[in-house]
Amino acid sequence: MALGSEITDSYLQLPETERMAFFNSLAIEFDVDSDQILEAARSYRDNPDLAHLSAIAHAVEAPRLKLFRRINMVPNGTRTLVAMRGHLLQVLRANPELRAVDIDLKHLFISWFNKGFLELRRIDWSSPARVLEKIIRYEAVHQINGWDDLRSRLGEDRRCFAFFHPALQNDPLVFVEIALTDAVPEALAPLLELERDMSPRKAVNTVVFYSISNCHPGLAGISFGNFLIKNVVEELKKEKSGLKTFVTLSPVPGFRKWLVSADLEGLVADELVEKVRQPVGRVVESDVYDALVKLCAHYLLKVKSGELPKDPVARFHLGNGARLHRIHGAADLSIKGREQSGGIMVNYLYDLAKIEEYHEAYFDEGKISASRAVNRLLD
Amino acid sequence: MALGSEITDSYLQLPETERMAFFNSLAIEFDVDSDQILEAARSYRDNPDLAHLSAIAHAVEAPRLKLFRRINMVPNGTRTLVAMRGHLLQVLRANPELRAVDIDLKHLFISWFNKGFLELRRIDWSSPARVLEKIIRYEAVHQINGWDDLRSRLGEDRRCFAFFHPALQNDPLVFVEIALTDAVPEALAPLLELERDMSPRKAVNTVVFYSISNCHPGLAGISFGNFLIKNVVEELKKEKSGLKTFVTLSPVPGFRKWLVSADLEGLVADELVEKVRQPVGRVVESDVYDALVKLCAHYLLKVKSGELPKDPVARFHLGNGARLHRIHGAADLSIKGREQSGGIMVNYLYDLAKIEEYHEAYFDEGKISASRAVNRLLD
Amino acid sequence: MALGSEITDSYLQLPETERMAFFNSLAIEFDVDSDQILEAARSYRDNPDLAHLSAIAHAVEAPRLKLFRRINMVPNGTRTLVAMRGHLLQVLRANPELRAVDIDLKHLFISWFNKGFLELRRIDWSSPARVLEKIIRYEAVHQINGWDDLRSRLGEDRRCFAFFHPALQNDPLVFVEIALTDAVPEALAPLLELERDMSPRKAVNTVVFYSISNCHPGLAGISFGNFLIKNVVEELKKEKSGLKTFVTLSPVPGFRKWLVSADLEGLVADELVEKVRQPVGRVVESDVYDALVKLCAHYLLKVKSGELPKDPVARFHLGNGARLHRIHGAADLSIKGREQSGGIMVNYLYDLAKIEEYHEAYFDEGKISASRAVNRLLD
Amino acid sequence: MALGSEITDSYLQLPETERMAFFNSLAIEFDVDSDQILEAARSYRDNPDLAHLSAIAHAVEAPRLKLFRRINMVPNGTRTLVAMRGHLLQVLRANPELRAVDIDLKHLFISWFNKGFLELRRIDWSSPARVLEKIIRYEAVHQINGWDDLRSRLGEDRRCFAFFHPALQNDPLVFVEIALTDAVPEALAPLLELERDMSPRKAVNTVVFYSISNCHPGLAGISFGNFLIKNVVEELKKEKSGLKTFVTLSPVPGFRKWLVSADLEGLVADELVEKVRQPVGRVVESDVYDALVKLCAHYLLKVKSGELPKDPVARFHLGNGARLHRIHGAADLSIKGREQSGGIMVNYLYDLAKIEEYHEAYFDEGKISASRAVNRLLD
Repeated sequence: MALGSEITDSYLQLPETERMAFFNSLAIEFDVDSDQILEAARSYRDNPDLAHLSAIAHAVEAPRLKLFRRINMVPNGTRTLVAMRGHLLQVLRANPELRAVDIDLKHLFISWFNKGFLELRRIDWSSPARVLEKIIRYEAVHQINGWDDLRSRLGEDRRCFAFFHPALQNDPLVFVEIALTDAVPEALAPLLELERDMSPRKAVNTVVFYSISNCHPGLAGISFGNFLIKNVVEELKKEKSGLKTFVTLSPVPGFRKWLVSADLEGLVADELVEKVRQPVGRVVESDVYDALVKLCAHYLLKVKSGELPKDPVARFHLGNGARLHRIHGAADLSIKGREQSGGIMVNYLYDLAKIEEYHEAYFDEGKISASRAVNRLLD
Repeated sequence: MALGSEITDSYLQLPETERMAFFNSLAIEFDVDSDQILEAARSYRDNPDLAHLSAIAHAVEAPRLKLFRRINMVPNGTRTLVAMRGHLLQVLRANPELRAVDIDLKHLFISWFNKGFLELRRIDWSSPARVLEKIIRYEAVHQINGWDDLRSRLGEDRRCFAFFHPALQNDPLVFVEIALTDAVPEALAPLLELERDMSPRKAVNTVVFYSISNCHPGLAGISFGNFLIKNVVEELKKEKSGLKTFVTLSPVPGFRKWLVSADLEGLVADELVEKVRQPVGRVVESDVYDALVKLCAHYLLKVKSGELPKDPVARFHLGNGARLHRIHGAADLSIKGREQSGGIMVNYLYDLAKIEEYHEAYFDEGKISASRAVNRLLD
Repeated sequence: MALGSEITDSYLQLPETERMAFFNSLAIEFDVDSDQILEAARSYRDNPDLAHLSAIAHAVEAPRLKLFRRINMVPNGTRTLVAMRGHLLQVLRANPELRAVDIDLKHLFISWFNKGFLELRRIDWSSPARVLEKIIRYEAVHQINGWDDLRSRLGEDRRCFAFFHPALQNDPLVFVEIALTDAVPEALAPLLELERDMSPRKAVNTVVFYSISNCHPGLAGISFGNFLIKNVVEELKKEKSGLKTFVTLSPVPGFRKWLVSADLEGLVADELVEKVRQPVGRVVESDVYDALVKLCAHYLLKVKSGELPKDPVARFHLGNGARLHRIHGAADLSIKGREQSGGIMVNYLYDLAKIEEYHEAYFDEGKISASRAVNRLLD
Repeated sequence: MALGSEITDSYLQLPETERMAFFNSLAIEFDVDSDQILEAARSYRDNPDLAHLSAIAHAVEAPRLKLFRRINMVPNGTRTLVAMRGHLLQVLRANPELRAVDIDLKHLFISWFNKGFLELRRIDWSSPARVLEKIIRYEAVHQINGWDDLRSRLGEDRRCFAFFHPALQNDPLVFVEIALTDAVPEALAPLLELERDMSPRKAVNTVVFYSISNCHPGLAGISFGNFLIKNVVEELKKEKSGLKTFVTLSPVPGFRKWLVSADLEGLVADELVEKVRQPVGRVVESDVYDALVKLCAHYLLKVKSGELPKDPVARFHLGNGARLHRIHGAADLSIKGREQSGGIMVNYLYDLAKIEEYHEAYFDEGKISASRAVNRLLD
């Protein structure tokens, strides 16, 4: 316990240069003992009973796990471990010998941050400033420009929900920003408009998930997002009858990177190849946008990494059982929007009656569910 | 997930007769695969890298763990698993083949119910009735006789604190009942007196822990009690300056059971041997109580199970670093008090400056810290 | 301020015998000064400006009002004044010289306890025990027999709402108990059944107000009840769609008192006159109940005190704009039910579309709205 | 009620031009009836009983009071009335015929906003954004420059408390900003420093009230400020032992206005007369500040409006029983600070043991309690 407390107190003050030494110590000094594992396995072979099984289980568990559990018991311990894994992930690619440390932390986090322990809270203008400033800081998709912008995103025609964990008080794990509208949106700007009429409308029938942000890099790979969407859908259906359509307005963050180096032959008229790749910042004509939309359909439906789509946002929503519903050109003309997504935004539709079916078809057969309108773009 | 949900919905309705079938299925069908373990161990021996280590770790983890984790993710899942282990423990002694199931559940609970995730809450007359009725039901040391008795125990001169876990809303894990007094108490009855003057006294300097109850049999062996006492001590010191003495008034629940079958030769005058063992219900003279107190000192200090005292309450407090302070005869004349403890109650003293030292001496050297007054009883 | 504080501290300890002296002092020493009033009026006649108007307004305000306002500013002041008026009302009939004191207190209370400052709260099994014990104590219509009975009345098929005022923390002013059913109830017993199935039903369409209790005698004449019913109706319509019928199940507390001394000639067959008046406790035959129901219809529709019905409960609901819907014999066979209401209970129906119309017809023309079924009983 | 609801709905939309018509209607059509008052007075003279007294009381109460009470009963009614009086006060000086309307509103507000109904709440970084944005908007002494400035003022070494009323949810009535320090401050800038070290200090012994703001112009003349200070002192003493000194750092907002037109002969060396009056914005030498401080002592101690000091802030604190403790030159060099207070700030000391005594000496004898240091400045 005393050790746990000491690490919690000092880790966050540790200069970046000394973190590597600490990580290396975790990787080497607190690693498993191979001989002990083999010895335990031998004993189990001779005598496969419960005690010998436990001995193996014990031997394959690195001593650092015990240390992490101790840290987790002191105040701010969980917070420290989450920060620690965040730092670890930054250096992991360059230091593959630390992977075992990451595996152990992730293993613990999967257990501690399991869905049963998360609390869904609505975030609105009555939430504590202490929480709201975190929303501003963590928003990762469409930057929040200060408190006025935040207030606009928490207006009466908007919703925001977050998952919290008891050990990270006032510190959200993941949150989603939502617009309640009367039509599936085709562009971002109207949703972020500060001066719009926020008064509740009768005709509201559509829930637009336009931003989902994970808050802690140290929790990468611990999936909350799909639970969040499902819980929020339930919550909103309880709050308001008349909500029929659940849809995203999402970027295609890998599109432009693929575009600039892909072989576009046969995908687009020769005279447009240059234009669709022209530097961000140029005025873009509408025929170019038509070409971009077609190319984006190709990118989302045909370009894979392994069995699954290359684009990370597509993987997330399609994996959740959503369907690719519409592709809109010139939908996000912010610099980030053009640099990453070529200005394109996409609607993924959550058809509650079909989620399970699409989810399974996606993972079992690699099948991407897409609307006819999107499929037609491939012709 | 669907399976988790199904089990959660149906387990609690399962007739007792079918539980055994379910437990057996967990023990056998969801057990580890020995061949797979040995195969993984062989591969690791040939190639002791991370992937092969993970393969063993995976193989020694029984498939039921995955099932339990699924259950834990659905609403009421944690509650179901805690109830399940409660039932399991009832049949474990008669069915030792289920031990592996218990080990797996306990392993998960230690992770999920770790101290970092517990919330300390004060229980008082402003607490929700939903919580208070649980306090009445769970009190395991000195029965609470309805709501009037409860209210008396939550008076202004009393305190009650409980640990809660986010997955068991409104359902305490463990709680402690406390009296604030101006002297170390020597008997139970005045503490439970309904008609006492409850108004806050100036002279209060003593905190008496007179009842600690674990609420869920399914959480047996997951230790909260010592954290609870430590957190409560901190909480009370913040609330009130002037609190100097932290002490229990505890039963000696194993005393009489030992007494009736022990060899008392040399421990007590021959003519009293019969009398100290006489059936509960007889009027007891004071010289007999003197003898009982001496015998109890012997029982607490000398009678061991392994290296440690036989009495479970003594093990708990001494293990926490408390000191055996006083032994009082005729201190609890309730039927339960006489049947289990021979009417005796004991003060364990928590001397905050010495807790660590005593705790270590106890576990390292098996040394029981006791006051001179108690040691003198052995002469 | 110091005086206000002193009175608040000591008033509640005042022996009953000294209260009269205190009240008399309020009535005489703290009364208006007639000469000053007349002098102010003369000045105003000569010079009817704002200053002289204020002078009269000041002169007609008894000095005790200033004292009461001081008391109201110290902690527990409001509570003290409410208790004070409660005591005052007990002795008012015998001491009419205290009426002016009562008028002043009531005048203040109407201002302080105005509807804009009341808070509607739902009472359920999650409410603080501190509040719930007050519900048990204050229930004035159908006694609550301890905490088990209370819990039953707060089951999932029940509702309870109360008005609170910020100066009387945790102490309700008035509360209503409600059953959610699938039919208009005809008798009390099924509603108070402890062993009933409480699980929420699909078919629920009826809201039954079966008990309304004012909590503080000192607030007599400050009307909250009708606001309470209206707010609760709104609250429930928000919570549950499908609620169609809002109805009471009410006693007729003045019926039997009227019955035993009324001239029943022509109202009931001669051979039944004795029987309808027979002492409470006898078994009652069904033909007698038929006669009682007819007599009760006569009592409710025809027997007046001034322009309005004699029965206080009838006055309350009819004044709120409810309609007299049904009269049920043998509907409350408790001792109180038979002693006051001859065992009869009545449904008053709140038809939201007609409340205003009935309310006005009642107060403007003294017209009692009653269903055809009830009117037919008069033939 | 319907009328009340209509006015509440439409008043806030009323164009400024139509407000005067509305106010005139309140003043004339809803005024008292002089004949009725005189008639009632005559009857009372002939027959000075309770009924005739009530008749006068009724007659001197203008019908608009009844209207205001109705408005107060509908949702947002209180808020509407407070806004209404705010507007009324803006036009009162130019329209003295509206004074009776103001008197009636103020009369009601004194009753409704009495101290017994106010709730003291701590404001900190966990408060709802909805409340915090009001703090930014209402701060009237030292402007809050956005959310970063606000957060700094709510740091761990700061406190902020507000009074709330149940009818104005989330909308403070008055609030005070506080610094916890280890010395009586001599200048403003260090208190408002954003970059300071906020960590809690051991040596904290001084509570500095450096800003008190009333939030609603419509509540002018309803005094909360002195209760606020007293309640906050109690609250802080409970929170932290070791707080010894309670002091303000206050502006002298009437000083410069007096200075520029006062006859300074004999108060200051002739050659400085020009200099102390020189336009704001010039660099000020230290000998000029010495002169200003002397002149300010004279202004605070000798310059009266009626019996009491001319300066409004001085009147407030001295009226509360504070003592004039120190006068600091060049203590607030903001434009507002120099324009109103000549850059001077003042400490008023709340000596809890002497408050009552000073308060009475001030109001009974017009005596201003001042420290020797301040008195010496007059020599």
